[in-house]
Amino acid sequence: MINQLVKKIQKTNAPIVVGLDPMLNYIPQHIQDAAFKEFGESLEGAAEAIWQYNKAIVDAVFDLIPAVKPQIAMYEQFGIPGMIAYQKTVDYCRKKELVVIGDIKRGDIGSTSEAYAIGHLGKVQVGSKWYYGFNEDFATVNPYLGSDGVNPFIKVCKEENKGLFILVKTSNPSSGEFQDQLINGRPLYELVGEKVAEWGAEHMGDSYSYIGAVVGATYPEMGKTLRKIMPKTFILVPGYGAQGGKGADLVHFFNEDGLGAIVNSSRGIIAAYKQESYQTFGAANFQDASRQAVLDMVADINGALKEAN
Amino acid sequence: MINQLVKKIQKTNAPIVVGLDPMLNYIPQHIQDAAFKEFGESLEGAAEAIWQYNKAIVDAVFDLIPAVKPQIAMYEQFGIPGMIAYQKTVDYCRKKELVVIGDIKRGDIGSTSEAYAIGHLGKVQVGSKWYYGFNEDFATVNPYLGSDGVNPFIKVCKEENKGLFILVKTSNPSSGEFQDQLINGRPLYELVGEKVAEWGAEHMGDSYSYIGAVVGATYPEMGKTLRKIMPKTFILVPGYGAQGGKGADLVHFFNEDGLGAIVNSSRGIIAAYKQESYQTFGAANFQDASRQAVLDMVADINGALKEAN
Repeated sequence: MINQLVKKIQKTNAPIVVGLDPMLNYIPQHIQDAAFKEFGESLEGAAEAIWQYNKAIVDAVFDLIPAVKPQIAMYEQFGIPGMIAYQKTVDYCRKKELVVIGDIKRGDIGSTSEAYAIGHLGKVQVGSKWYYGFNEDFATVNPYLGSDGVNPFIKVCKEENKGLFILVKTSNPSSGEFQDQLINGRPLYELVGEKVAEWGAEHMGDSYSYIGAVVGATYPEMGKTLRKIMPKTFILVPGYGAQGGKGADLVHFFNEDGLGAIVNSSRGIIAAYKQESYQTFGAANFQDASRQAVLDMVADINGALKEAN
Repeated sequence: MINQLVKKIQKTNAPIVVGLDPMLNYIPQHIQDAAFKEFGESLEGAAEAIWQYNKAIVDAVFDLIPAVKPQIAMYEQFGIPGMIAYQKTVDYCRKKELVVIGDIKRGDIGSTSEAYAIGHLGKVQVGSKWYYGFNEDFATVNPYLGSDGVNPFIKVCKEENKGLFILVKTSNPSSGEFQDQLINGRPLYELVGEKVAEWGAEHMGDSYSYIGAVVGATYPEMGKTLRKIMPKTFILVPGYGAQGGKGADLVHFFNEDGLGAIVNSSRGIIAAYKQESYQTFGAANFQDASRQAVLDMVADINGALKEAN
């Protein structure tokens, strides 16, 4: 799957991922109205609005991008109907040949971590039969519980040719509270980065490992250090756009081969029509605004990469 | 909700919680057969087996215990039908007036953490209406992302009178890889414990905070230290029984008022009929074995507490 991700990035020339994190207030009124007319102002109505919104955006941008990253929390908040919309979104994106990174930030221990891994990346046995659950291609994982928490995910990834992105340094302002604490003079995130490189060595693709890392665009200097600590690790970079990261901040997350990182934007793409720069599209053409925002983001990042080399 | 948990512990004289973590191979064959007969060897069949198994155990023990802790991973592995079984289990336990601790170990940042909090503890707005999602009473939360990740949960807890248990020192062998790392001579878990006490001060019940901590039974010495660092924090203690923790190891997790901790057992209770000590019950009477295992666990812990005082 990491090989497939690299190939798709090269083919689209777009080291980006679109975050499908639908908030109801991002969704144009006409889509909400249609969904509520059919299902009422209910959890089912909200789920339908989310699904129609996602589908329209995916249809508008799938040929430009290698991957999507649905954030499961945004679906989970609508209970079971929300989870069904998540499942439909994952299935649809896979049908469109997009790599699907399930942003689930799960993490537990032993058989419990294995159950998460099975549910999201693998298949589960029922009697004499086997079934896929949510079936994403990659999942994000929280490392706080150590190897006991991560190894069951790696086991399932090996069986299924799937991958992980493990949280190393997150993009939020308070990420330093624990992640930046110094241990023998070096911050915790470096220690976690070293572990990710170690775990990654167990499951290598052609040029990069199936086991990637999450490092926020908002901390470019730390990204530079972590890039060196984890040379074979693909880095998923959140925090571009709405959270403040810019193309020029991102060059050090990449290797000299122009690969090694994939930059996420969520709100900046899916709710582009609400931004001043794209408001001429109007809510009726929200998906065209998203397409233009993808093109602009790719140009920004590729421009910065070109300038740096 | 923390006041309600304390009251229920005092009423039942049982500082324990039963972990509803159903693996298919724990479930007696006759329950699996009945479910598969109705729904086939399908995800729906597995979900039905889980639900019938949970219901039988809850019916057999609900009068003895204050709380249950369903582990969502065990349901999530069966996709949407598994999530429906989780929801049914939560609803049923609440109807039986048990405090429900959703062991979801979620954690993200900002609006994403808030979405998890809304989905599991609060209610979501759809147009002019509001709906509860999974609606547990407490949720477990991963602290790796710092205050930005935890505060949105606390906000929803305040609105809904609900609570959290935040991972501090987990019960698994490799928990020390990151959690035990020394920062200025003190382990990371102590720093996290201090933060939990700080966060907890923002949302106090009568004698304990709504914001609790998770500390593994397998690390009694660390439990002793953390008990002092977090005097007003209720501690959820996993790792009893199957993971190796014993009643005598647990006394230091409690305060002098005999409160302050709640000990979880999962496999040891729900799959008791598979253990040598309870095998005379047989698979047909698995729920009676679970009831006896609850009585024995309560006696073990209360005995150890009595001996210590």
